Amino acid sequence: MNLQNRFNQIAQLDISGYGKDFLLTWEKTDDEIIATLYLAELFREMHQQGLSFKTFETGLAISIFRDKSTRTRFSFASAANALGLAVSDLDEEKSQIAHGETVRETANMISFMTDVIGIRDDMFLGEGNAYMREVAKAVRTGFEEGTLHQRPALVNLQCDIDHPTQSLSDLAMLKQAFGSLENLRGKKIAMSWAYSPSYGKPLSVPQGIVGLMTRFGMEVTLAHPEGYGLIPEVIDLASKQAIASGGSFSIVNDMKEAFSEADIVYPKSWAPYQVMEKRTELLKSGDKDGLASLEKEALANNARFRDWECDEEKMSLTKDGKALYMHCLPADITDVSCEKGEVSKAVFDRYRKDTYLEAGFKPFIIASMMFLGRLENPVNKLDEILTKKENRL
Amino acid sequence: MNLQNRFNQIAQLDISGYGKDFLLTWEKTDDEIIATLYLAELFREMHQQGLSFKTFETGLAISIFRDKSTRTRFSFASAANALGLAVSDLDEEKSQIAHGETVRETANMISFMTDVIGIRDDMFLGEGNAYMREVAKAVRTGFEEGTLHQRPALVNLQCDIDHPTQSLSDLAMLKQAFGSLENLRGKKIAMSWAYSPSYGKPLSVPQGIVGLMTRFGMEVTLAHPEGYGLIPEVIDLASKQAIASGGSFSIVNDMKEAFSEADIVYPKSWAPYQVMEKRTELLKSGDKDGLASLEKEALANNARFRDWECDEEKMSLTKDGKALYMHCLPADITDVSCEKGEVSKAVFDRYRKDTYLEAGFKPFIIASMMFLGRLENPVNKLDEILTKKENRL
Amino acid sequence: MNLQNRFNQIAQLDISGYGKDFLLTWEKTDDEIIATLYLAELFREMHQQGLSFKTFETGLAISIFRDKSTRTRFSFASAANALGLAVSDLDEEKSQIAHGETVRETANMISFMTDVIGIRDDMFLGEGNAYMREVAKAVRTGFEEGTLHQRPALVNLQCDIDHPTQSLSDLAMLKQAFGSLENLRGKKIAMSWAYSPSYGKPLSVPQGIVGLMTRFGMEVTLAHPEGYGLIPEVIDLASKQAIASGGSFSIVNDMKEAFSEADIVYPKSWAPYQVMEKRTELLKSGDKDGLASLEKEALANNARFRDWECDEEKMSLTKDGKALYMHCLPADITDVSCEKGEVSKAVFDRYRKDTYLEAGFKPFIIASMMFLGRLENPVNKLDEILTKKENRL
Repeated sequence: MNLQNRFNQIAQLDISGYGKDFLLTWEKTDDEIIATLYLAELFREMHQQGLSFKTFETGLAISIFRDKSTRTRFSFASAANALGLAVSDLDEEKSQIAHGETVRETANMISFMTDVIGIRDDMFLGEGNAYMREVAKAVRTGFEEGTLHQRPALVNLQCDIDHPTQSLSDLAMLKQAFGSLENLRGKKIAMSWAYSPSYGKPLSVPQGIVGLMTRFGMEVTLAHPEGYGLIPEVIDLASKQAIASGGSFSIVNDMKEAFSEADIVYPKSWAPYQVMEKRTELLKSGDKDGLASLEKEALANNARFRDWECDEEKMSLTKDGKALYMHCLPADITDVSCEKGEVSKAVFDRYRKDTYLEAGFKPFIIASMMFLGRLENPVNKLDEILTKKENRL
Repeated sequence: MNLQNRFNQIAQLDISGYGKDFLLTWEKTDDEIIATLYLAELFREMHQQGLSFKTFETGLAISIFRDKSTRTRFSFASAANALGLAVSDLDEEKSQIAHGETVRETANMISFMTDVIGIRDDMFLGEGNAYMREVAKAVRTGFEEGTLHQRPALVNLQCDIDHPTQSLSDLAMLKQAFGSLENLRGKKIAMSWAYSPSYGKPLSVPQGIVGLMTRFGMEVTLAHPEGYGLIPEVIDLASKQAIASGGSFSIVNDMKEAFSEADIVYPKSWAPYQVMEKRTELLKSGDKDGLASLEKEALANNARFRDWECDEEKMSLTKDGKALYMHCLPADITDVSCEKGEVSKAVFDRYRKDTYLEAGFKPFIIASMMFLGRLENPVNKLDEILTKKENRL
Repeated sequence: MNLQNRFNQIAQLDISGYGKDFLLTWEKTDDEIIATLYLAELFREMHQQGLSFKTFETGLAISIFRDKSTRTRFSFASAANALGLAVSDLDEEKSQIAHGETVRETANMISFMTDVIGIRDDMFLGEGNAYMREVAKAVRTGFEEGTLHQRPALVNLQCDIDHPTQSLSDLAMLKQAFGSLENLRGKKIAMSWAYSPSYGKPLSVPQGIVGLMTRFGMEVTLAHPEGYGLIPEVIDLASKQAIASGGSFSIVNDMKEAFSEADIVYPKSWAPYQVMEKRTELLKSGDKDGLASLEKEALANNARFRDWECDEEKMSLTKDGKALYMHCLPADITDVSCEKGEVSKAVFDRYRKDTYLEAGFKPFIIASMMFLGRLENPVNKLDEILTKKENRL
């Protein structure tokens, strides 16, 4: 599809209530989700054609990473740079946050000339998203009070509840793999827990997937061993969305059952909701012995499900044995990154290229969120950019 | 005032001897100080109107932070970015400075294509400003010898003597609050020590304030407990400037006396000059026991002045009970960041918005210093920028 | 020479096979080496004249530093910035590389919108260059597979084998000092080991020098104590190149012999090849006791050659006593950075300005490598830039 057609598609959507922040996909209307996706595709197409979509003459994009990250960090840096923003990382060790500044004050102090703030805070249940909302509220109030001349947009780069830049990249991948969003209707996706030799992985990826894919008429199956449930609110939401979209949502305790006749499989480890809750409490109270025994217990529990591995045998159960394998990366690959992991070497190798492609949507998804959240009139600006057709080199 | 009028005001000032470096406010003439202030206001106005003041196509701004910092770090990053410069942080742990390079060599090595260097070095009395002068000398010599094609400008982001980006932001705030610099004449400002449960805070803020505000005909009162004096040279300077400007400068040992009928109060903790001197020696000799006992002694001494808190009672002593409360942030707020601090929660809350506004001038002050220090002919360039009137977005 | 003449010189060279990566100087043809040098000179001249050579509207330059660095870090940042690229540092401690990601995956994940990758990895013999090739292969495959829309160029910022940005800066310095590359023919350069109180310095500088200077008809003498040899492959290469270029290459075990009648001296410490090999093994196996005893042994061995210092007496042996002293910096200077080092204070002071000038070529050399490696048609783009003649300020 040419650039102008892509633009026309976006211009027809209602994004008048998009808002400044992208915190949870289910806070956005279908039109807003689709606009985010289409704009990301448009930016990607421009990048492939060597065209610039620089939007800002100058401006800052601040990142706050409260967990390690490679791909999200560089996706954020790439997105900001492509729009013309310089990245400045708020390193909480170097800053005076360590000195007891309130979130409100810091959020304002860093935002005087800032256009975008991206936050990753996914370690503690009940904390990450709440922190983002606190920052969002602080800069909104700062703007209303006249402290800030402009209200920075906020992008959730992964929290305890959702991972919208990931789930939307995954949606972009699915759209490309199956031809259109319409074609996703009736397709079966198995979001399955998988074994990992580590513990404490966030719940945001599976929650993000069931929270987004149930909106597109897909047959979404969540599979996990008993006791590895997700946050109840997200489960409720997924059920309701599935009904509304004409799809389905079910939970099974058997990986093979989930894989059976699936068009797409997404095998990925996570920590049980209850373990994460307990862990958050122990971390807060600084109970090291408690943490050690929780880890031991959790790993021992994981070990009971070592057969939850995505191997060729399970892949053969999928639709024509050819389901699309997805992963947010990095995967725990048996005999590569660990002795026994989420996926066998053979399966991963076959789909490696696809997982890279999946990841490649992320910088454009983030750029799209920044653009739609920050600009007063994104469609006009987009028109202007497409009219200029400036080369990047 | 419109942009053109602001420009005209600046164009009338004599800034021919501005120089490359901004190290101490009292090394600058009145015209140079006022030009820095006016240009910051102009940049701020442009930013509010969504106009770009990008000045450099490419170029580096290097920051050297020898102490923790959030607001100054982001103010520097914002200023550099708005002018078109990319920030590169010299992290002395990562660099080979740790390997015994001389300051001269490093200063030249990082400056081949650098336009601005910003330094924060406020920990040790007698060190920070001296270090900045060493760097300034190195790059000046480098330029004269032909090592460097251009002489980077140097901005003092806080040293042991002065904190010019702070005091000029404070001046901008006062000008806005009272309508003009002329209106500051005769206004009483109380720069007062306040209690804090920590020790070793730099002297540069109070020194910066008395070193700058005495130039504008203000009635400047410095208040502190006995033994909490500032550097003698700055006290001398403040006295002389007060006389020259038709204002006054006095020192009292009573917070209430200072607050009495004050138009502006600036309650802020600092370490006594003599304690800082002793501490610097102990740090240099690596005397850990000495440091521990000095800290204990200093904190015990501080504790004798726990009633030096800016509370509603003391605020009621000020002019109509409505003095402007100022702080460089973060403040030690009683019952918020500590049990007992510099300011009561009630007072801080009432002036929170004002302190944020005060801080908001800093990025523009820094941009102004960079612009005036780096450019050969800043007025011409400014004219060019205003003529172009380019939107930032 | 004016800019147009410089351009014409470059346009005449055959750089059709330049390739994406600059890993070893001896993998480049004479025309490619000369084009890199000429373009660096052209960029430097433009910078001196205040002209911009910004090439990219937006884009990322990623740096990976596996060793401490000041000058290379800032040279890389300067070069990237001047071309219009934003620098993003891959800090392996912050990233998930620490979590066992494969090099291939990480290389692709950071490269979706990346134009240049610069790597410094010089600590372990047999590792650094191999790692660079792995990254280069990963992004080439990623490009071929469609994961990446563009193939980032890779610049070796120092490895275990070569230090091309250094040796080419040195060549630029020699060209300037002697007037032309042609004038280097027959000039004697003494690349000599020198004493240092540290151990484990990389071999890449001396290897880079003998691997490059033997191509220009120079009389290259490598001097070191017995047992301090370089990698055999580089020695072979230097011998062959010397013959081909009509120069000579010899190895002596006497610093004075090497200095005798030399036009240029390059006294610099390094660790013996065999020590580096042993050290690499011990580091890999985590043998701390082995490392401690190796260090002790190596330092004791070094101590036998404390008279390998570049002092006035040895300088007097050189051509008219006026050889050009070179060093990649920082040098171990006797009585400055150490009690006894590579060079006496008097000699270093006399040539300090020259060593700074030598270092000053590096940002332009790196920019040249980025430009020639990344662009499809660098000569056309250069023509365009020169035609625009945009001021940097």
